[in-house]
Amino acid sequence: MSTRVTAAPADQLTVRRSNLSLVLSHLRDAGPRSRAKIAADTGLNKATVSSLVAELVERGLVGEGEVERVGSVGRPGQTVGLAPGRVVGVGVEVNADFVDVTALDLTHEVVLSRRAPADMRALGERGAIALVVRCLQEALATLSAGGSSVVGVTVAVPALVDSGRGRVALAPNLGWTGTELAAQLDAALGLGDVRVAVDNDANLGAIAEHALGVGRDVDDLVYLAGEVGVGCGVIVGGELLRGSSGFTGEIGHAPLNPRPEVCGCGRVGCWETQVGLGVLLAGCARGPDDPVLDGDADIDVRLDEINARAAAGDVATLETLQRVGIALGLGASVLVTIVNPRALVLGGYFAVLEEHLRPFVVHTLLERVVAPDAGGVEVRASRLGFTAASRGGAVVALQQVFADPTRVPVPA
Amino acid sequence: MSTRVTAAPADQLTVRRSNLSLVLSHLRDAGPRSRAKIAADTGLNKATVSSLVAELVERGLVGEGEVERVGSVGRPGQTVGLAPGRVVGVGVEVNADFVDVTALDLTHEVVLSRRAPADMRALGERGAIALVVRCLQEALATLSAGGSSVVGVTVAVPALVDSGRGRVALAPNLGWTGTELAAQLDAALGLGDVRVAVDNDANLGAIAEHALGVGRDVDDLVYLAGEVGVGCGVIVGGELLRGSSGFTGEIGHAPLNPRPEVCGCGRVGCWETQVGLGVLLAGCARGPDDPVLDGDADIDVRLDEINARAAAGDVATLETLQRVGIALGLGASVLVTIVNPRALVLGGYFAVLEEHLRPFVVHTLLERVVAPDAGGVEVRASRLGFTAASRGGAVVALQQVFADPTRVPVPA
Repeated sequence: MSTRVTAAPADQLTVRRSNLSLVLSHLRDAGPRSRAKIAADTGLNKATVSSLVAELVERGLVGEGEVERVGSVGRPGQTVGLAPGRVVGVGVEVNADFVDVTALDLTHEVVLSRRAPADMRALGERGAIALVVRCLQEALATLSAGGSSVVGVTVAVPALVDSGRGRVALAPNLGWTGTELAAQLDAALGLGDVRVAVDNDANLGAIAEHALGVGRDVDDLVYLAGEVGVGCGVIVGGELLRGSSGFTGEIGHAPLNPRPEVCGCGRVGCWETQVGLGVLLAGCARGPDDPVLDGDADIDVRLDEINARAAAGDVATLETLQRVGIALGLGASVLVTIVNPRALVLGGYFAVLEEHLRPFVVHTLLERVVAPDAGGVEVRASRLGFTAASRGGAVVALQQVFADPTRVPVPA
Repeated sequence: MSTRVTAAPADQLTVRRSNLSLVLSHLRDAGPRSRAKIAADTGLNKATVSSLVAELVERGLVGEGEVERVGSVGRPGQTVGLAPGRVVGVGVEVNADFVDVTALDLTHEVVLSRRAPADMRALGERGAIALVVRCLQEALATLSAGGSSVVGVTVAVPALVDSGRGRVALAPNLGWTGTELAAQLDAALGLGDVRVAVDNDANLGAIAEHALGVGRDVDDLVYLAGEVGVGCGVIVGGELLRGSSGFTGEIGHAPLNPRPEVCGCGRVGCWETQVGLGVLLAGCARGPDDPVLDGDADIDVRLDEINARAAAGDVATLETLQRVGIALGLGASVLVTIVNPRALVLGGYFAVLEEHLRPFVVHTLLERVVAPDAGGVEVRASRLGFTAASRGGAVVALQQVFADPTRVPVPA
């Protein structure tokens, strides 16, 4: 409602930085194009664009591409586009079941992706953080050996995160409280100018879906991450809904289960007690020694087994999937009623088991959302698997470069 | 995430209009001040500000105020501020129990406020719209006689509204479906350039709380309207959350009641079946002839009776208030978990019965929201009573003038 009037005197360096950012961001959003086209699109004059592009090339952010002929007259122009490979952002997901490290270049292509399965709660806070440090050190060494330059690291945690301070306020499924994660990782890694940021995993997953996943074409989406915990990330008008104190995302602990089932957080009736990965696996398991319950095995392998059992018509598995699917649809219908998104993106295990969960989710949404056609929401399965949050972390790390390309130094 | 580059060549008239809007909006947000101060605040030069203010005075939007001395040196300047009285926006609330008409001037002072109690569902769609027309005609005649100039009319409806078309898609508690309300009111009123807009009541209530109510100091709030239906309006970063197709607000029909109680919309388990006005009144009533159930009596009178019974220790009333308060807190905790607002504003009957409901709401939020201290949310009672939505309608009507002051003609 309010309009703030600010006086912002811009010196020449500020203007230059802002124009470098404008050109680099435009190449990300609009794709490769000639200098003449960039000038026409942005309103900057051609000489300025040439000078800006030259600097971006020098910093390794932009490269020359194909020759483009615009219209039938005039000189053909050489296109320029984001440079693949050299400059990368790193995202890490600290999950209850694994640590995932993913590096993306400016074009959002995967440069490196590694996952270490582990029972993170059993490792304890100190052991878990040591594992994160080890995974990151190995990844950074590999990237450095390959000639990549890391511009930022963002760590995704299934937690209430004070992202300003890089502090984990509460991570029920890791057993962490008040963990100064960014400070500990900064100290252990010693990356100098490159600081570690920390954020909620579902929020970073939503950013990934919007930046490079199945939500690329929409500006209003809800991302639901099905893991041991269940989180949500909401994008409104292209921006992440962060809330007044940064504490969005923990939908898994909202009181959406009508039965008083006890949650890992100590409360009863949390949504997670109906739709969390633990409940799904327990419902499908044939006994306490069923390999789908083995926390040290890769989660994708265990979920493939569930899909196989469902395909084979296993009754306990199908009943569990139906029960979870309906509960997922009921909770999602509350989110859809409040937010009215264009897309509901199912992530994590919800996406892996999409074939069996989706019909129940869609049916329940149509039945329970009062807006016609459930407000026009489309249910989509993530294609990022369990790397959505770490990819989102890498996207956020790269955003610093798009905001200020001079953060990447000119090579000596 | 994405940055759109647009070429927007601004001709002189566009620039002038934009600067008139800037100055008028600044006077709304920052209060009366001298021309010199406006120039310093906005970065416009003093001669331009003088010319803009002269035009705003001529259009009746701005008036001269007190003499202000800035600092100890220099000439004292005469302040200018928004002109009270002459230019007004009109908001109408179509409620299940009444029609309310409120007119606000540019300073958001109430120029006119009238309420006609009526059982709107019993009147039927045609009869209800006829009553709205009659109320509006009387109000417009009074305003015209008093020398006020109406710049817009916005009608609040407890409904899913396609606000772009002014069409009520579905109003369960009025029994309307697919009602072309704006078109019908335009035809009946014949206001010429002044077109009738239609919007969801809870969304307009949220706008009112943020613009002139207990949410003025925050940019992230959730407004809950307790009436026959229950709606919510969410303000994020100062802007109303409208959703991808405009269908936010109908939280009353989200499946938040764990018991399968039947709702007026035909579904079971809607939140409204726990916290709607009808349930509250039924719980407190001493029999079918209890006057608190009389739909033709003013709702404030009936709620005063409930407050009196609670104060006198009436057991059925106190138990009902506790039951409703806890259910209100549980549903609110889902909203607070998703949105993490700075303020939760209780509106409608929730505000009238605040003394008895608030303790249960606060207790439940602290117990159920996983973020520390419920994410820092403050529970506040609206002071706008049942006029929040109509005031919000008037605020929206006035926004057109702040966006383009030339919409108000220079008097002949």
